[in-house]
Amino acid sequence: MSRKLVILTEGHTNPHTAKTASCMIRYRRDEVVALLDGTQAGKTTQDLLAVGGDVPVVSSLDEAAGANTLLLGIAPPGGKIPAPWRAIILEAIGKGMNVLAGLHDFLTDDAEFVAAAEQHGVTLTDVRKNEERDIARRVGIRNDCLRVLTVGHDCSVGKMLTSVELTNALKNRGQSTKFIATGQTGIMIEGDGCPIDRVISDFVSGAVEKMVLQHQHNDILIVEGQGSLVHPSYSAVTLGLLHGCLPQAMILCYEVGRDRVTGVEHVKIPPLAKIIELNEMMASITQPSRVIGIAMNSRCVGAEEAEAERERVRAELGLPVCDVIRHGPDELVEAILEFKRGDGWTQTGG
Amino acid sequence: MSRKLVILTEGHTNPHTAKTASCMIRYRRDEVVALLDGTQAGKTTQDLLAVGGDVPVVSSLDEAAGANTLLLGIAPPGGKIPAPWRAIILEAIGKGMNVLAGLHDFLTDDAEFVAAAEQHGVTLTDVRKNEERDIARRVGIRNDCLRVLTVGHDCSVGKMLTSVELTNALKNRGQSTKFIATGQTGIMIEGDGCPIDRVISDFVSGAVEKMVLQHQHNDILIVEGQGSLVHPSYSAVTLGLLHGCLPQAMILCYEVGRDRVTGVEHVKIPPLAKIIELNEMMASITQPSRVIGIAMNSRCVGAEEAEAERERVRAELGLPVCDVIRHGPDELVEAILEFKRGDGWTQTGG
Repeated sequence: MSRKLVILTEGHTNPHTAKTASCMIRYRRDEVVALLDGTQAGKTTQDLLAVGGDVPVVSSLDEAAGANTLLLGIAPPGGKIPAPWRAIILEAIGKGMNVLAGLHDFLTDDAEFVAAAEQHGVTLTDVRKNEERDIARRVGIRNDCLRVLTVGHDCSVGKMLTSVELTNALKNRGQSTKFIATGQTGIMIEGDGCPIDRVISDFVSGAVEKMVLQHQHNDILIVEGQGSLVHPSYSAVTLGLLHGCLPQAMILCYEVGRDRVTGVEHVKIPPLAKIIELNEMMASITQPSRVIGIAMNSRCVGAEEAEAERERVRAELGLPVCDVIRHGPDELVEAILEFKRGDGWTQTGG
Repeated sequence: MSRKLVILTEGHTNPHTAKTASCMIRYRRDEVVALLDGTQAGKTTQDLLAVGGDVPVVSSLDEAAGANTLLLGIAPPGGKIPAPWRAIILEAIGKGMNVLAGLHDFLTDDAEFVAAAEQHGVTLTDVRKNEERDIARRVGIRNDCLRVLTVGHDCSVGKMLTSVELTNALKNRGQSTKFIATGQTGIMIEGDGCPIDRVISDFVSGAVEKMVLQHQHNDILIVEGQGSLVHPSYSAVTLGLLHGCLPQAMILCYEVGRDRVTGVEHVKIPPLAKIIELNEMMASITQPSRVIGIAMNSRCVGAEEAEAERERVRAELGLPVCDVIRHGPDELVEAILEFKRGDGWTQTGG
């Protein structure tokens, strides 16, 4: 039986919070029946999330005909299940629907959910659940596999989306490429990966290294970045990922106009040049690694402002710059292929 | 009933692997009855670990008269219980002894240990167990509390020991000082703290920040560092700790002669100047922070070589340098007090 999703974002349907919802609609449109948010019923996901065309926003599970799975569609800081959602989750279970979640609060740790699921014969899936217990060893990493990591000036700027767009574009050009998903939404889209922000800190880089070893028969790995080296809450995740995948090249993702750290808004985000310096310094401890392009997220500005920003950043940093949604990912794809054709990078990495 | 320890290091009694054992003997000598290692029986801990005087090394639990607690005394990479130790642990439980461990493999997750403990009415304690689920917020951190973090060029170089020595020396000088323990051995010594390498990566800096908020009524916090920013396996833990405690000053700990990363020996450790640069860069993103002194661990070299190294490093880095065991911690204590008397640092941190 194929998966048919009703995505729960009740009270949280905005592009920032409903990241999981909007990315599932973007990349798994054929599986999505409806979005459930009683506060926005009657609209479409296009209206609210700028994606999905006529996917309807409904106010009850009954209106999502044919759906067999309830997907919790948000990724809040700390990853907790909003209290008002409990009744909706129990109602879905009662109707015989599976439930799929990517939060830190596990469905399968909740006695009431587990009992209800057993009673109604449905499956609860926690994408963030993992048993990673291996440290990184830096052994067996292939020199001739190009590892490209998306890094960011903040969390939630489009690293996952950029990674998927780059992977798809590289595949379309005949490049043997694999998307390495490291977060709950990326994993739901790709069907494999590891939720590294939920891994015990001692094993973060080991978990990433394991995915690299498993998929390095591809010519290119596009690794989904997490957080930011300058994010006071999440930099542990970011550095473990950076050192676990040992990228030869990085794509810096940022959102136009964002200058305060998400969730810690009294802290300023340093300029892009500083972000590049920090990432290159921390990535280059044992081998050269550099930022080869910039993915700008210009969702909050108009076309004219986006073009002006693109030219400004290009001139300032001397790197290719594009918004992979607005402009398409070609300029960054070219940067990756040019780097791949270049000398030197295959000598590094082992 | 006071705790009387027999420390299990069977087959692993060397200063590097038996770090937990040697530090408990150094700082909790009055609680230690004996060390259990059948391969070394008849010797003393002084012979094997250069600490403890006449604490005997015995070959069976029966020889550890008066002991009421078995402490697992090693901290191996990955934190697993050595298979041959299972029988010894079960024997201790059978004799009515509590068991205390700091490994990643939890005693309390092991059905056989749990059943045996229940049967014999003893307590199993896993120091690394935690339920940390708070992200760092960077709110409420006091500007007038001096936070000093010990950082390292590698793991297992003496950051915990340096932190304890500095804390004790500062207290002896009448300074209101608290040791913030972040690893299993530090926690066993101090009686509180958080095992941050076992915390879910998203919550590492939050767990550290919580300890800072709890103890910042002291004038000085000495925070136990973990791993190293250049350790490919553990740098996630290191950076989360650095950003969670937001130190105004750091003490760099290193071991004389060590030039390969522990556990990843094909990777070279960068020079100390580079280690200082990386730590200062990552610590100074939102406020100034600098390395103010060097704790050299000279356990593997003689007195003459230690002095030559001390002078060489002093001259190269222009910082106070001492081995807190060989020379005592006074030079670093002076550096901390001088920094505390200086201007500027109280303006940072919030």
